[in-house]
Parts: sequence; structure tokens; C-alpha cells
Amino acid sequence: MSDSVVSRRRLLSTALAAGAVASGAMACASIAAVHAGDNRSRDRSESLARLLLGVDENGADFTLTSLKILIDTGLPATDRRKKILVVGAGPAGLTAANLLADAGHQVTVLEANGNRTGGRVKTVRGVFSDPALYAEAGAMRLSSAHPTVLALADKLGVRRRPFYGSDVLTQTRTPQAPPVFYRSFTGEEWSNGPKLRYEPPPSAGRSLIRVNGTTVTRGEYAANPGALHAGFGCALTEASRTVLDSAVRQASVMPDLPIERQVDDWTELLHTYENHSLRSYLMEQNWSKECLAAIGTLENLTARLRHSVVFPLVDHTLIPSDATYWELVGGTASLTDAMARRLGPAILLGKRMTRLEQTEHGVRVWTTAETGDEASDGRPADPVESFDADYAIVAIPLTAARFCAFDPPLSYDKRRAIIELHHDAATKVLLEFRTRFWEQGPGGFRGGRCATDSPNRSLYFPSHVENSDGGVVLASYTFADDAMRWDSLTEGERIHFALAGMRELFGPRVDTEFTGVGFTQSWARARYALGEAAMPLPGQLHEHHLAARSIEGRIHFAGDHTSLDTAWIEGALESGVRAALEVHRR
Amino acid sequence: MSDSVVSRRRLLSTALAAGAVASGAMACASIAAVHAGDNRSRDRSESLARLLLGVDENGADFTLTSLKILIDTGLPATDRRKKILVVGAGPAGLTAANLLADAGHQVTVLEANGNRTGGRVKTVRGVFSDPALYAEAGAMRLSSAHPTVLALADKLGVRRRPFYGSDVLTQTRTPQAPPVFYRSFTGEEWSNGPKLRYEPPPSAGRSLIRVNGTTVTRGEYAANPGALHAGFGCALTEASRTVLDSAVRQASVMPDLPIERQVDDWTELLHTYENHSLRSYLMEQNWSKECLAAIGTLENLTARLRHSVVFPLVDHTLIPSDATYWELVGGTASLTDAMARRLGPAILLGKRMTRLEQTEHGVRVWTTAETGDEASDGRPADPVESFDADYAIVAIPLTAARFCAFDPPLSYDKRRAIIELHHDAATKVLLEFRTRFWEQGPGGFRGGRCATDSPNRSLYFPSHVENSDGGVVLASYTFADDAMRWDSLTEGERIHFALAGMRELFGPRVDTEFTGVGFTQSWARARYALGEAAMPLPGQLHEHHLAARSIEGRIHFAGDHTSLDTAWIEGALESGVRAALEVHRR
Repeated sequence: MSDSVVSRRRLLSTALAAGAVASGAMACASIAAVHAGDNRSRDRSESLARLLLGVDENGADFTLTSLKILIDTGLPATDRRKKILVVGAGPAGLTAANLLADAGHQVTVLEANGNRTGGRVKTVRGVFSDPALYAEAGAMRLSSAHPTVLALADKLGVRRRPFYGSDVLTQTRTPQAPPVFYRSFTGEEWSNGPKLRYEPPPSAGRSLIRVNGTTVTRGEYAANPGALHAGFGCALTEASRTVLDSAVRQASVMPDLPIERQVDDWTELLHTYENHSLRSYLMEQNWSKECLAAIGTLENLTARLRHSVVFPLVDHTLIPSDATYWELVGGTASLTDAMARRLGPAILLGKRMTRLEQTEHGVRVWTTAETGDEASDGRPADPVESFDADYAIVAIPLTAARFCAFDPPLSYDKRRAIIELHHDAATKVLLEFRTRFWEQGPGGFRGGRCATDSPNRSLYFPSHVENSDGGVVLASYTFADDAMRWDSLTEGERIHFALAGMRELFGPRVDTEFTGVGFTQSWARARYALGEAAMPLPGQLHEHHLAARSIEGRIHFAGDHTSLDTAWIEGALESGVRAALEVHRR
Repeated sequence: MSDSVVSRRRLLSTALAAGAVASGAMACASIAAVHAGDNRSRDRSESLARLLLGVDENGADFTLTSLKILIDTGLPATDRRKKILVVGAGPAGLTAANLLADAGHQVTVLEANGNRTGGRVKTVRGVFSDPALYAEAGAMRLSSAHPTVLALADKLGVRRRPFYGSDVLTQTRTPQAPPVFYRSFTGEEWSNGPKLRYEPPPSAGRSLIRVNGTTVTRGEYAANPGALHAGFGCALTEASRTVLDSAVRQASVMPDLPIERQVDDWTELLHTYENHSLRSYLMEQNWSKECLAAIGTLENLTARLRHSVVFPLVDHTLIPSDATYWELVGGTASLTDAMARRLGPAILLGKRMTRLEQTEHGVRVWTTAETGDEASDGRPADPVESFDADYAIVAIPLTAARFCAFDPPLSYDKRRAIIELHHDAATKVLLEFRTRFWEQGPGGFRGGRCATDSPNRSLYFPSHVENSDGGVVLASYTFADDAMRWDSLTEGERIHFALAGMRELFGPRVDTEFTGVGFTQSWARARYALGEAAMPLPGQLHEHHLAARSIEGRIHFAGDHTSLDTAWIEGALESGVRAALEVHRR
């Protein structure tokens, strides 16, 4: 595998150098400088490979370290009590704050939101006509490939149950969640209970796919994928997920190799594909535009084909294809609520950072008291307050930092990351129905996802509902340009059009079943999140990732964007542990 | 020139084919199919080249045709009066509607906005504390490379005066606008007055650039560009505009060649760079990331480096470097207002198309009466109305069409264009000041642009203000990801932060001079525009442009996105003439 990667890389660099000569262009840097850049990129690839695999120079496994600290031991009690400001009460900030407070430091958390913690973990409660119902406007599933978040939920007494990414039969009995088990590349194992084998319930294959005017069940699609693909002019005869998995695995690194060999292979891979999008990667594998359109549509990837190929490579390699998914009883916010409860009055709500000063002796954070809510207007208002401390952990998105003043200015590389790193749009439209009509009758199903080429793109159905005949459907879940279309609309329009898209799949019944209550969440339009997540464009991972997480004097940075599990709670938690360790050790 | 283009193209295709073999990837299409795709792409390149140059198979010049029809003759009077619905009252729809109505057809224009026409031409009037002041939320300048729009303004009696893209001395006397002159590649000339030489006033070089904490005037930058570039780690010693022009002109086609040779060269160029972004194009010319950051920042291109390189190539070739720019007295909307006045009651406001049906006999457009305004909520409400006609011209953005039902469905290619074609974000923050303090004192300047690496990025100052001591500054003008950062904020926050960015450039005086009145326009968040303009990502021009303008039965399409002068009024006008011709000739 790594041989073919090497040969492809050589071929591309040769073509690039030759092309540069052939173009006769005015060179902005000499060829020699390009080669120096090549080496620098290679060094960065190795750093990224190590971060990705969680392995440090001594061969230790950071995931294991993180699990032990967060779940088992905490940080050692400090004998040098520090005053620490944590900016942002999302999962990263809450993790760092809890660890540091438990170790005896004096911690204050400043959160811009006036009425909740959790950041992009946001369970919508109390807005539906049936008070028993809730739904996820943000993170909605936890992967078995992410032991830290699962173990933390277990530790905090937040119950887990399966999240059915594929639909199951309506009467499916909910299986018991097995304990968390993690096997490190060092050979060491970590678990919070006996090792149990978990058999997920079989898929029913009844959820729907509607593209190019044709509606089929997933079972029908699996039996004859070519029929739907033909509607795009694509001749593929295997299911979209299989095709994509197989294409991405062409380049992936074997997870069973010795860790230093994995580091080498990932270094090679990251270096080779530094400037590739998923689209350009697949085009090099001879994918036609027709097949890109087909797989993009069926896998809800259309608008994300333009992002760096690195995260699909990472996800397909580090998250095994038999990974299981979990949801939290009471909603994902049950986890962040539990974390916030432990901090109690150390969290100050409605304090938005506008300025961060540091001297050689300490830091000062200036805030404004926020008015308005997460989406609607609230001009930054008096009173301005300031908070002094020894250190700060900035655990807000980079996009939010764009509108904060730093004195002295942050380093050039950090500033470029804040200016340039792409953050994706993601938008959800949640609709409440009186009954779970999709679960009824001979074609009834529970959970799972419908796919469509209508604006709705992807629809998720609840895996579990308690104490209600109704249910909330995620009637549209879109990313990138697909989400941008929805983001132009008003809240009322989004609800109207999402219902129209459901009508195409389920007929006029949706109109009588709809309670009239919907909730929409545009992460790109959320004033404190300013995007769904950092989602590097080609080249940006190498250019900005290391700077995004670097320490600036007395200021440390956390958040999923400072990890390589971007957009996952796991990444936020690991970054919180890392930042807490950094500050604790000073 | 075209030789080097050819050799580069061959080199790239060889590398691609070799790479495909080396990767050993599961091929989605055979190599033979890729070559077939290559031919198809080449044919498309030629079609695009012809559209770009406005040349048809008979060698006629569409720009000239368009000028004659729109300015001189109109369409010939019809002897077969048709009933025509025009959807959208932006410049494209207004052009088509006027031409067809003047030719004797029965025309109705359906406009979603309840209170104005003009689309993305939007002059903000009556919101500033001084009623004499107005400002542009949309299109703000007309280029001398675009004869149709200039000649139309002249014809409709809308006065033109210079738009100072570079600042001039405060006391500069406003020169007279010369008549419009167009010389076709056919040798024919068109003019609406005597041919006069126009000398724009000299630049004062006093507007400011602030990057990496250093503030200089444009004059200082021109004298020593390397000093600012060094702050990015970039060694370039020529001014950013010169460097970029020169880099793009490497590939450009000579405008003085015989037209069929230009078609050939453009075909080659479009084929070669089909899948290039501006960034990848410059990287092939050995630009370092440091220089990309420097030039991107100084030219306000950072976030647009990811778009297709084709439009920069077009702009740098078809808009000569000595092009002049013009604004309209009373605001750009004076033009669309004049066009709308001619149509009078044929324009129905507050009618948003939700569905378009066609049979072999005619079309039917369904609308809802709109409530709310352009930005705030208004759930599509009763009463639903329908309008019947022989033909429809759909002159709304593709993104708006995404939320309309078409029965029967549009063709596959049109649907893909509607789903996939990227539309850019663009956001403006306009602030009103009591006096034009930037025009005062020894460093005073009028018009022009300041550049900064703060979130504001680009600031434009008014070229002319009449009857007021005050002035409205475009305090922030951003695109793509830069605009997305602002789009997450509320209106009040945008005004607050834009003022903060001006304070960095002009000191605390901005606070006492600010009247407290600001206006912000996010085109990505505008519910009827759904984006600034179609802005193809690499590959999308070939994939979607021809489909975007194709006729679907009795439905014709207009709008700047159906031209290759995307985002310019010129493109909208030409598309309106084309669509009117199409329908008139049926």
C-alpha cells in the first residue's frame, strides 16, 4: 500500500515541477524554495500523522492517557493553585474546567450564551407540543470508535442506547449497551466493565430513497443498486456506501501494523493528499462526474466533495465499518448538563469575550453582557466586565475568535488559521408529528435515514421515543452548499419546505400528522458557533492545524478543531484533557 | 502562448492517466470512458469559449446584436402576440419583459419582493439619518468593458459619473462621462455619441492598507511593496495587483487575434483549466502559501482562491487593465427603477413562484402572497394564485429555483445545476457618518478602497455625495468564507464590529462621527436572492453552465448566471435580450 502511495506522490511532484518549467510562469519562489516547502510539508505530515494516531515521541497513546485521566484518576492534585479562565462552555471547555477544578485550581468558565451550556451539543426541549418530546439540534450520535465520550457518559450516569443509523423493525427490543472497551496500539487495554460482544439489531431496509423521481426502499436499493445509479448515468452496480468505502480504503493505512509503521504510512498519505479534495481524489481513481453525482447524492456528500480528502480518509480508517452508534437518554445535552452541574457557580453565563490581554504575569479577559438569544439580535451591550487570571483556555470556535481582539496580537500563524480555516455550514429542520406514522403498517420502520435529492437531502427518524405517541423527525439535514440554500430562508420557510419534502416521500399524511411545531438550527447562522465545525479545504490541514492548537504565551486553545476528531465530541473531550494537562503542568 | 497551454495540458493528462494506473484503484469508468469524457469536456470548452466571446457559428457578435436590440431597435413588432410570464424583476427579467412588451406581447412580471424590484441591484434609501444619503447594498459600479449597461443608463436618462476604485484628491472635479463606444471583433463599431478620449483623474494614493499590524497609505505601499509582503513571509517586491495580473495573463488569450483563433485559444484554455481553482493555478506557477496569503489579503481574494480560475482569467482578459468604472446618480437602482417604470402595472409585487407546470399548450405559475420582508420571517401564506401563459422566462437565481416545484420535472442536467452550482456569499456593512472626515486634512482622500486583514477586509468610500456633509462608508465588503463569518452575526453585531474595524484605521474619531445608523446586507441570507451570485467551483462551469441556460419546453431561463458575465449587470442584461429573442422567435 505505502509503495503505491509513494510512487503516486513522486509522479505528482515530478509533474508539478515539469509543469512549472513548461508554464514559463513568473515564479513567486524558486524551485529550490518549493523543495524546501516540500520538506516542511513532509514534517507537518508527520506531526499530523502522530496527532491523528494519538502517539507521542515516546510511543505513548494519548487516547489511553486521556481515558485514564478523564475517567479514572483525574489530574494529580496541584500544590501550585492557579487561577484559570476557561472561555466557552462546550464539551472541550467543560472538560478542561472540570479536570482543573478537581485538581485544586481556581477555575472560572465564561460562556457567551445567556441560557445554556453545551455549545454545539444542543438538545431542544420544551418547544414541542408534547412536552415529553425532545430532539437534537446539534450532536446526535456517539461512535463506538470514540471510547472517551462513551466512558464519560457511563461515568456520569447518563444512560446510552443504540442510535439506529439504519432503520430497524418497529418492534425491535432495545439491546443493553455493552461496557466500553479500548485496545491501544501499545497492547494495553482499557475497559469500564466486562468485555461483551454486542450484536446490533438487523436492519429492516424499509427506509426510503428518492432520487430522480424514483422512490425505493433501502432493501430494494441493496438488491439492485444499479437501477438507481442509472438515473444519474452512472454504471456502478454496487451500493454507494460499499463503493465509497472501497475507493477510500485504496489509500488507507492498515490499523494492525506496528505503530511506527502506521505513522510512516500516514505521513506518506497526508503528504500525498495534502492538496486533494475528496472529489479530486476520486477523479484520480477515474470516477466519472455521473458517479460522483450518484454517490454524492446517496451518501449526502455532494457539497462536501470539495473539502479536504483527509477527513474521509481518517473516518474510513479510524472508524471501522462495523462501528456502532449510540445516543444518550434525555438527549446529548444530558452529558454536557452533567459536566456543567459539577462546576456549578464556576460557570458564568451571558459573558461574551471581546478582548483578551496578556502580560508576562497573567491574562485579562474582557466581556460584554449578552442580550438577545443565540440567533436574534442583541447589540453587544454594557456593562463591560473584566476577569483576571494566570492562564486562559480559549475553547471557542476559531470563527468566534475572529471577532475578539488579542493584545498583544496572536502569532502570525494563529492569525492566519483564524482568518482562513474553512468552517462548514450545517442545517437541521426538526418537525413534530402527532403519531409515528412511519413506524406503522407493513412497511413500518424505526430509526434510520431516508435519502432524497430534494432540498431535504437526508431525513433521520427517532430511534427511541418514550412517553409519547408522537415523534420528532429530523426532516432535513444538510451540509455545506446544500445547507447554504436553507440558510437563506427564514425559519418559517424552512419548516414549510421541509414538510413539502417529506410529503414527496410519505404523501399527504404528513400534513394531518404535523403538529405545526418545528424547530430549525442553522449552525452557520448561530452567532456563538459561527459554523458547524472546522472543515479544512484542500491544503488547510497542513497549513493551519498545528497553529490552531499551539499555545500563545499564557493562552491555551481547546475545542474539536484543535483535535483531529473534528466535529466529534470525542475530539472536543481529548482537546480539553490536553489543554488541562498543558496548563496544569506549567 | 497557446503552445505552452497545449503542452501543459498534455502533460497534465499524461500524469492523470499514469496516476490512474499507478493507483490501482477500482475504476468507476474505464480509461476509454475517461477519454470520451475528455472529448465531451473539449466540446463543452468550445461552446463556452464561443459564449464567452459572444460569437456564434456564423461569426456574429452577440454583444453587438444585444446593443442594437436593446438600445437602438427593440425586437421587431410581433404578428403573433404571445402571453408571457417573466418570473423575477431583477435586471434580466426587466430587460426581457420590456423588450417583449415593446414588441407587442402580453407580458406579466411576477416578483417575490413585496416592496421593490431590482433583485441584487439594491440602493438603500431613506434609512440614514440624513435623508439626502443613500448607499449600495448590491451592485455599485459599472465597467467600461460592459457597453450594454452603460448605454442603457444613457438611453433611460440615468446620469453616470466616475466610481473611484482608487482614491482621488478630495477637491477633484468630476469629469464628464464620455459616450459609450464598442468595437466588435467583426470590425463594426457602435457608439451613442462622438468618440471621446477619457482621462480618469489621477489616484491620490492616500487610502490605507493595514495588515499584520502595520498601516501604510497606498502610495507608500506602491513605493515599497516588499515591506508589507514581508509581514506574510512573502518575498515579492511588486505590487499585489501587478503580480496577480501578470500571473493570470500568463495564460490569457490575446484579444487582438482573429476571432476564430481566439475561440481556439480559449477552448484550449478552458479545457486545460477546467478543474483548476485560482489557488491551484497559482500553485502551479510556484506561488508559495506565503505569497498566496499576501496577495489574497491585499486583493481581498483570500476566500475566493478556491473558486474556479475561469472567472479571474475572463475578468483579466476581457476587462482591460485600463477599464474605467462608473456609478449612477441616485444609485444603481435608478436604472432598474427606470426599467420597471416602463412596465408599470405589468409588474406584480409580492408574488413568489412556488410551482411551475407546463403542458404542450402552455405554462402555469403558482405563487403565494409573500409576507414579511426580504430578510425576516413570512411563512408562505394564502392566497395561492395561479397565472397562465404561453411561455415563461425564469429570471431568478438557481438557488431560488431549488425551492420551486416543476411539473413535469426539469431535465436531469438542469436539476443537477440547480442542486450543485455554487453560489457565493457576499456581505456588506454600511455605516453613516456625520462628516466625511476621511476627506479632510492633509491626508484626505475621496473614493477608493482601504484594505485590511481585520474582519472588515475591504472598505469603500463614496466617490460623490450631494447635499450632505455626511457620508455612508461601505465599512466592510466580504466574500465567501470571509462573508460567512459576518453572516453568523446579528445585524447589530455586524455594525458594532465593522465600526471597531474602522477604529483601527481611523482612530476613535469614528465613534463620535458615527450617526448610530448602519445597514447590513448579507446576500447569502437574503431569502429571495439566496446568494451573491453563481460562482462556479473547479469543474462546475463545464458541468453546469450550458444546462443553466438551456430551454426546457416552454420555459426559458435568464439571469447573470446564464451568461458568462456572472455577477455583473451586463450579464443579466445580455441574458434578458437572449431570452426575449428566444421567446419572440418561437
